[in-house]
Amino acid sequence: MADKPNPPECPGRIVSNDETTFEQMDGRAHHWYLSPELTPGANMLVVRVQVPVGGGHPFHHHPNMEECLYVLSGRAEQWIEDKKYEMGPGDTIHLPAGMVHATYNAGDEELSFLAILSPADSDPPGIVDVSGEKPWRSLRPV
Amino acid sequence: MADKPNPPECPGRIVSNDETTFEQMDGRAHHWYLSPELTPGANMLVVRVQVPVGGGHPFHHHPNMEECLYVLSGRAEQWIEDKKYEMGPGDTIHLPAGMVHATYNAGDEELSFLAILSPADSDPPGIVDVSGEKPWRSLRPV
Repeated sequence: MADKPNPPECPGRIVSNDETTFEQMDGRAHHWYLSPELTPGANMLVVRVQVPVGGGHPFHHHPNMEECLYVLSGRAEQWIEDKKYEMGPGDTIHLPAGMVHATYNAGDEELSFLAILSPADSDPPGIVDVSGEKPWRSLRPV
Repeated sequence: MADKPNPPECPGRIVSNDETTFEQMDGRAHHWYLSPELTPGANMLVVRVQVPVGGGHPFHHHPNMEECLYVLSGRAEQWIEDKKYEMGPGDTIHLPAGMVHATYNAGDEELSFLAILSPADSDPPGIVDVSGEKPWRSLRPV
């Protein structure tokens, strides 16, 4: 078996689970696989998001990137604009650029989901937080 | 809780596990979440691939789409051009457009992985099978 390809010299890149870049956010943790900083040349972002019980990612949108979420484990309270849905393992959601959404842990165990955003070379900002604005700030009981 | 959004009228689309479109291939099964036919407007392809013991996806490439694989469960024998690697749950690989690759089940249980390809609106062909050509046809012991 060959040694693992070593970015950025090798254009085919394996990013294993234990090589992800960790980012602790408020209410969730990010484990980055693909991003412009980590994997130049890849034109998609891939991040695994771990949401503890009671945590989540409040209302936001990505003005210039579409997004797909894939639930790995746990239960998600998924908002698309002002509508609430529930998702479980193996369920996906596709969000066009600019569509406001939020994801919370809806269960009694950790929620884990994969988020893919594209294209990675879109104009900034990558994300716009609208959780403090009307009507988003009052949609969900605190 | 709201009713599920109904494509294509609603641009935010949930595709649950039991709504995927099944495609039986030689050596593997595809469960499609996002594709130009199923989810017009989404500019990425998302498919879950189930590979039984002994199965796989022989050498091929996507001339105009980049791809990311995410191993959900099981063990993968992953080829990047003429080099072989092994991947397990939570491991990813990124493949630029045109890079020859193959994925086989390397374990004694089913292999399941998620494949994301982008952009969905690229020029055809989406995939080119090179498994019958040199050097790919003789790289792997039968």
